[in-house]
Amino acid sequence: MKIKAILALVAITLAGSAAAQVKPEEAIKFRQSGYGFMAWNMARIKMNVEGTYNKEEVIKAATAIQAIANSGMGALYLPGTDKGTGWEKTRAKPEIWTEKEKLGKAAMAFNKEANEMAKVAAAGDAAATKEQLGKLGGTCKGCHDDFKIKD
Amino acid sequence: MKIKAILALVAITLAGSAAAQVKPEEAIKFRQSGYGFMAWNMARIKMNVEGTYNKEEVIKAATAIQAIANSGMGALYLPGTDKGTGWEKTRAKPEIWTEKEKLGKAAMAFNKEANEMAKVAAAGDAAATKEQLGKLGGTCKGCHDDFKIKD
Repeated sequence: MKIKAILALVAITLAGSAAAQVKPEEAIKFRQSGYGFMAWNMARIKMNVEGTYNKEEVIKAATAIQAIANSGMGALYLPGTDKGTGWEKTRAKPEIWTEKEKLGKAAMAFNKEANEMAKVAAAGDAAATKEQLGKLGGTCKGCHDDFKIKD
Repeated sequence: MKIKAILALVAITLAGSAAAQVKPEEAIKFRQSGYGFMAWNMARIKMNVEGTYNKEEVIKAATAIQAIANSGMGALYLPGTDKGTGWEKTRAKPEIWTEKEKLGKAAMAFNKEANEMAKVAAAGDAAATKEQLGKLGGTCKGCHDDFKIKD
């Protein structure tokens, strides 16, 4: 058996373990849940920097965003989930499955800023949190512009 | 102004900051998102203990569950969110707003086991993970039995 064939088999086996046991509509629902929960936590941080700053609340929110960002949600973009309905009809653009390199860069930028957000939150400075929220939000928007169908 | 009146005013002011700026249907959607994302991560851990154990994936999943569990989702059970539709019609039972002590105990038990799950995941032992997943799942079920309307 050639190396290439072995590697292909390994890839199939890996895909066949955890990810492939998730049904397409479940995968769509799970990823919408991840984004939905991050949206709450982004909104909370925004409220804190615009209103009364509660360091503990910002830490909780930033920790949740960081954990979701690093959870490996890419596994939820299974083949066959470019169309379909989870909580609602997916708004994933086909480019997610065709522009892997661009998507990878967008995902890495998002993860980087989410990790930085958690650090900034731990320090507890409102102005720095506001600035980092802007950077983090920029990576969300960048990815949405390229890979999410508009409302 | 009497102390009681001042305390009531403080409570209203606090409630008026972050939490009250979230619309009821958004609050319902956000909490459904949190549970939905945890469901994925519970399922992933289950797949890992039943199939090939991938320590890194289990850590990611447990970290996400822990962060969501500790995020302060209680703030999403705003007055007026006992009925309504987020992603779907809420299945929150009225007891959430009437049996505060029982609910608090259920929430604390869940947080405790979610924190323990993250510790066990970090150690990387499949059998211990399976055992802890059972304990964590038990706290989910306990709360669902008492506070969530069945399918």
